Amino acid sequence: MENPPVGIIMGSQSDWATMREAATLLDELGIAYEAKIVSAHRTPDRLWSYGKTAADRGLQVIIAGAGGAAHLPGMMASKTRVPVIGVPVQTKALSGVDSLYSIVQMPRGFPVATMAIGAAGAANAALMAAGILALQDPALATRLDAWRDALSASIPEEPSDD
Amino acid sequence: MENPPVGIIMGSQSDWATMREAATLLDELGIAYEAKIVSAHRTPDRLWSYGKTAADRGLQVIIAGAGGAAHLPGMMASKTRVPVIGVPVQTKALSGVDSLYSIVQMPRGFPVATMAIGAAGAANAALMAAGILALQDPALATRLDAWRDALSASIPEEPSDD
Amino acid sequence: MENPPVGIIMGSQSDWATMREAATLLDELGIAYEAKIVSAHRTPDRLWSYGKTAADRGLQVIIAGAGGAAHLPGMMASKTRVPVIGVPVQTKALSGVDSLYSIVQMPRGFPVATMAIGAAGAANAALMAAGILALQDPALATRLDAWRDALSASIPEEPSDD
Amino acid sequence: MENPPVGIIMGSQSDWATMREAATLLDELGIAYEAKIVSAHRTPDRLWSYGKTAADRGLQVIIAGAGGAAHLPGMMASKTRVPVIGVPVQTKALSGVDSLYSIVQMPRGFPVATMAIGAAGAANAALMAAGILALQDPALATRLDAWRDALSASIPEEPSDD
Amino acid sequence: MENPPVGIIMGSQSDWATMREAATLLDELGIAYEAKIVSAHRTPDRLWSYGKTAADRGLQVIIAGAGGAAHLPGMMASKTRVPVIGVPVQTKALSGVDSLYSIVQMPRGFPVATMAIGAAGAANAALMAAGILALQDPALATRLDAWRDALSASIPEEPSDD
Amino acid sequence: MENPPVGIIMGSQSDWATMREAATLLDELGIAYEAKIVSAHRTPDRLWSYGKTAADRGLQVIIAGAGGAAHLPGMMASKTRVPVIGVPVQTKALSGVDSLYSIVQMPRGFPVATMAIGAAGAANAALMAAGILALQDPALATRLDAWRDALSASIPEEPSDD
Amino acid sequence: MENPPVGIIMGSQSDWATMREAATLLDELGIAYEAKIVSAHRTPDRLWSYGKTAADRGLQVIIAGAGGAAHLPGMMASKTRVPVIGVPVQTKALSGVDSLYSIVQMPRGFPVATMAIGAAGAANAALMAAGILALQDPALATRLDAWRDALSASIPEEPSDD
Amino acid sequence: MENPPVGIIMGSQSDWATMREAATLLDELGIAYEAKIVSAHRTPDRLWSYGKTAADRGLQVIIAGAGGAAHLPGMMASKTRVPVIGVPVQTKALSGVDSLYSIVQMPRGFPVATMAIGAAGAANAALMAAGILALQDPALATRLDAWRDALSASIPEEPSDD
Repeated sequence: MENPPVGIIMGSQSDWATMREAATLLDELGIAYEAKIVSAHRTPDRLWSYGKTAADRGLQVIIAGAGGAAHLPGMMASKTRVPVIGVPVQTKALSGVDSLYSIVQMPRGFPVATMAIGAAGAANAALMAAGILALQDPALATRLDAWRDALSASIPEEPSDD
Repeated sequence: MENPPVGIIMGSQSDWATMREAATLLDELGIAYEAKIVSAHRTPDRLWSYGKTAADRGLQVIIAGAGGAAHLPGMMASKTRVPVIGVPVQTKALSGVDSLYSIVQMPRGFPVATMAIGAAGAANAALMAAGILALQDPALATRLDAWRDALSASIPEEPSDD
Repeated sequence: MENPPVGIIMGSQSDWATMREAATLLDELGIAYEAKIVSAHRTPDRLWSYGKTAADRGLQVIIAGAGGAAHLPGMMASKTRVPVIGVPVQTKALSGVDSLYSIVQMPRGFPVATMAIGAAGAANAALMAAGILALQDPALATRLDAWRDALSASIPEEPSDD
Repeated sequence: MENPPVGIIMGSQSDWATMREAATLLDELGIAYEAKIVSAHRTPDRLWSYGKTAADRGLQVIIAGAGGAAHLPGMMASKTRVPVIGVPVQTKALSGVDSLYSIVQMPRGFPVATMAIGAAGAANAALMAAGILALQDPALATRLDAWRDALSASIPEEPSDD
Repeated sequence: MENPPVGIIMGSQSDWATMREAATLLDELGIAYEAKIVSAHRTPDRLWSYGKTAADRGLQVIIAGAGGAAHLPGMMASKTRVPVIGVPVQTKALSGVDSLYSIVQMPRGFPVATMAIGAAGAANAALMAAGILALQDPALATRLDAWRDALSASIPEEPSDD
Repeated sequence: MENPPVGIIMGSQSDWATMREAATLLDELGIAYEAKIVSAHRTPDRLWSYGKTAADRGLQVIIAGAGGAAHLPGMMASKTRVPVIGVPVQTKALSGVDSLYSIVQMPRGFPVATMAIGAAGAANAALMAAGILALQDPALATRLDAWRDALSASIPEEPSDD
Repeated sequence: MENPPVGIIMGSQSDWATMREAATLLDELGIAYEAKIVSAHRTPDRLWSYGKTAADRGLQVIIAGAGGAAHLPGMMASKTRVPVIGVPVQTKALSGVDSLYSIVQMPRGFPVATMAIGAAGAANAALMAAGILALQDPALATRLDAWRDALSASIPEEPSDD
Repeated sequence: MENPPVGIIMGSQSDWATMREAATLLDELGIAYEAKIVSAHRTPDRLWSYGKTAADRGLQVIIAGAGGAAHLPGMMASKTRVPVIGVPVQTKALSGVDSLYSIVQMPRGFPVATMAIGAAGAANAALMAAGILALQDPALATRLDAWRDALSASIPEEPSDD
C-alpha cells in the first residue's frame, strides 16, 4: 500500500478530540492520511524516527497538534524539511495562548505553519494541506475549489432566529 | 518572462523592513519571487485582482506581511486557493500581538500559515515556501537540505565572550 | 420601499445571537434596519458589492459584528465612507480579545468605531447609530434622550437582595 | 462666530502629541474644530458643563483622547447624546492596553466609538468624524472620497529599498 | 440618625452579588454602612452629589465596586478627598482585567485603593475600611485584631480529604 | 522625637527612583515619614519586626513599593493591621504586570490598597495616605483640598504646541 | 520516626485539590512526605518556623502550592536554602496567571523552581523532587527511570475514537 | 579530568548575554560547570546525545536557557532524569512571555524548574543548582548560606539618593 501524503500527529490521545476535525476534512476532500500519537516528551524517539523518515516515506505535509508547552510541531520541523502545520490545542488554564506561543514563535530556520487555536485550526490545517497538495494535483485543486464554493454558497443572505 | 512561483505582498512600504528578510532568504535559496505592496484597506481592488489571478499566473505560494488589524493575509486566503503564509509585523503599542491574533485566528475554511512575529517570521515564511516548492522540485529540496545542514553546522559548541 | 438607514451585517449565523441586541435596540428606538450575513472570507464578493453600493442605497450607518480574525468591519470600512461601527463577538479560546484587536487596531485611513466585546457592544452599536442619525433627525434625538432618561430613571437607589 | 461641529478634548497637555493628529486631519478635510483640555479627574466640572452644553452649542461629534484609567470618553458619553469617539493614548507601563479597555468596555447604554491606540487612532477619529458629518454635507462627502482616493493612489506597486 | 462611616456604592444591581461580601464583613466587624447604587454613566448626577456631600455627611471611607470600563471608583475619587477603595468586579469576556485596569491605573492626583478582582476583593475592601477606621477607634482595632487572629487560628495544620 | 505617621518601605535601592515620588508628595503636604529598605526576601526578619512594631510605633499608614514577585506589601499586610498601600514598580520584562498581580490579588483577609504601576502610583500612594490621615487632622484635610484645587486650577483650557 | 525528605505545603485547604496530585505521585514513587497547610498571610509565623527548621529537620525538597498573590513559595525560599518547588494554583478570575507571575518572577537571590499551572504542575513538582532525591538514591533513580519508561510505553501508536 | 556537576546549555550564542549570569554565580559559589550551545532546533542530535549521556557523565543539574518557542529545556527534560532548570530569555516582541509559557507549561511527566525571565532568572538558576548540590555537599551548603547571609547583610537600612 502506498504511503499517504499527509500525516496527522498529536501529543496525546486527548488531542484527538481537536485533531479529528483535520481528519474529517481530509476525508471530505478525498486525501489519504495517517493519524499517529507522537509525543515530543513521552516518545521523543518516535518523534525522531518519524521526522527522519518523513520525506523518504513520501509524506508531503505533516499536521501536528499539541497543547501547553507544545513542542511537537517545532521539533518535527527541526527534523524534516517536509512542511509542518501546527495546531495549538486549547488548554485549561491559559486557553491555548501557551500552545499558540510555543508553536508560532519559532526561531529563524524552522517554520511551523501555525493555525488558529482549537477545532477551527485543525480543520484549517487540513485545508492548508489540501492547498499545498493541490499545487501538484489538478483534480484535488478542482475539489478544493468546489469545497470553497460550496462553503460560500451555504451562507444565507439573512440571519435566522431559529 | 515566466511568472515567479512566490509572491511577497505587504500592507505598506514600512513593512518592507521586515519582509525583506523573506526576499533575502528566497534569494539565498535561488527561488524567484515578486514583491508587491497590496494594502487590504487602501488598495482593496488590487488585493482582489491579485487574489483572483494568483493561481492562473502560476503563483505557488503567497507570503503576506501585515501589522495591526492585519487583514491582508486572511483576505488573500479568501480569494485564492494558493497557500498563503502570514507574517505578523511588530507594532508599536501592542508589539505585534494584534497582528498575530488578526492573522492566525482565521475561521474554518480559510487557513493562513502563520509565522512568528517580525523578521524571524519573515525569514521562516521563505523557508516554508521553499519546503512547499521542494515537494515538486528535487533540486530545491537538495538546496534546502544543504541550507539547513549549514545552519546546524554553523553552531559552535560553546558560547563565546566576544 | 425606502432603504433603511442602518445595515446590520455579521460574519456568520452564529453571530446573530450577539447582534440581535443591536436589532432589538433599533426596534426600541424606531429606527429601520436590514440584517444581513456578509462574511469577509466566505462571501468576499458580497462584502464588496455591499460596500460599493452602501452610500448610494442610502445607508447612513453600518453595524458590523465579527469574531476571531474579525475582518468584516475593517474591510467594509475600506470599501465605503459610510460610518462603520464594529462589534467584537466573544470567542471560545481568546474571549474576544482576538476580535477586539482585529477590529480596533485599524491603520490610519480607515476607522472602525469599535464597541465593547459581546452583547453590550451590540446594543451600544445601535445607540451609537441612533446618536449619529439623531444629528439630522430631531424626533429621533428626542426619542434617544427619552431612552437615556428612562435608563437613568430605572436605577434604584439601593441594591436589592432578591 | 459659529460654533465648530467637532470638539477635540483630551485629559492632559501630554495627550496633545497624540491628539494633534486628529486636528491635522480635520484641517486637511476643511472641518472646523475646537481643542480643549478637559480632565475627567482634575476638572470634572469642566467635563460636566462641556457635556451638558454640547448639543446646544451645536457640536456634532466629540473626539476624546485619554490614557491609563481613561475615563474622559466614557464620562462624556454619559453626559451627552452627541456621538463620542474615543482615542486610547499609549501609556508607559501598559502600552495603552489600559487606555483601550477603559474606553472600549463601556456598559450598555453609553457607547464610545473606540479607535486604535495612539496616533493612528487619533487620525482615524478625525476621519470617522468626517464620515459622520458627510452624511449631511455632500461637499464634505466629496472631499472625504477624494482624500480616500488620494490615499489609495499614493500606494506604490512595489516596495522601495531607500 | 447618625450617618454611617462607610458607604458601599456600586455601578449596578448585578454588582451586589460581589459587593455583598463587603457588607457582610462590615456587619461582622460591627461597622455601620450604607449601600447605594451609583452608576457613573447612568446616574452621573447622583455620583456628583454623592461625592460632593461625602465629607460633610461624615463618610470616612467609600467602597466602590464596578465592572468593565469601571469609572465609578475613579470618578468618585475625583469628587471627594474621602478615601475611595475600588473593587474590580469580574466580567464575562475579560474576567475583570478590564475592571482592574480601569480602576487601578489612575493618574497622579486621584488615588483609588484597588483590591483584588471579585468577592475576595470586596471582603478585603471592608477590612481595609476597618483598618482605616481603627486608626481612630481603639475598640474597632481590638475587634479587627481579634478577627485576624481568629482567621489565623482557623487554619488547620494539615489538609483534609473530605 | 515622635515617630512619623507614614512609613515608606521598598524592596531595594532601585525602587527608590519610583518611591521618591511618594516622599516628594508627602513633603509637599507637610506629612512626616520615614523611608526604609525592607526586602521581603533578603531581609525577611526586618520585615517581620517592622510589621510587628508598626502599630505600637505609631505608624498610621505604610506605603510599600516592590517589583516582580512583589511580596513586600502583602507580607506586611499579614503582619500588621496598619493600612498598607502597595505600589507596583515597573519591571523590565513584564512592565510591572507581574508586580501588579502580585500586589493586588491578595486573598480574603489581607488587603493591600494597590496603586497604579510606577511613579504615578507612588505619588498617589502619598495622596491616599494623606486622605486617610486627614480623617483625623482637619488642617491636613484643608491642605489636601488646597492641593487638589491647585492641581485642578493648573489645567489650561487649551493644549499648547510648545 | 525519621523525618520525610519532602514537605508539601499549601496556602489553604482549597489548594489540596491541586496539590494532592503531588502526594499521589510521591506515593507512586515510594517517597515519604508530609503535607501541611502553611499560609503566608494567615499563618506567617508558621511559615517562619517551617522555613527556619527545614534543613535541620532533614527536609530535602519543599513543594509549595499557592494561588493569586501566591507568596508562599517565594517567602519559603527566602527562609531556607532547601530547594523550593512552586506550583501555581489556578484561580477564578485570572486563571492562574497571577499565581504564575507571583511565583516565578522572583528577584536575584531566591529561586523558586516553578511548575505549570494546576494539577499537571503539582504532579511535576513531585517528579522534580524525585529527580533531585535520585541524585543521592540510586534505587529511587531506578524507580524514576522505570516510571518514565512506563509512561512512554503507555502511549498508543494511534488515537482511538472511543 | 572529572566531569563538572552542572551543565549550562543555551539555544544560541545570543543567549549567552543572559546565561553568563548563571556562570558568574556558579563561579562565586565555587561550583564547576560546562557551558555549551545546544539548539533544540538547529542541533537536535546534539540535544539528544547530551540528554542521553547526562546522567552517566555525572551531571547533577542542567541549566537550560532559551527564548521564543523555547523548546530546549523541555526537550532536555524528556531525555534525562537529571533535574533541568529552565531560564526564559527575554524576547523582542513578546518580552519573554513566549519563552516563559513554552518552558513552564510542561505536561505531566516532564518537569522543568522554571526561573524568572532574563538575567535574574539565570542567576537564580545557579542558586537553585547550588541548593540541589548542597544537599550532598555540606561545604557547599555552608558557602551557600554565607552567600545568602552576605546578600541580606548588604541591604542598607535606608535608600540613598546618590
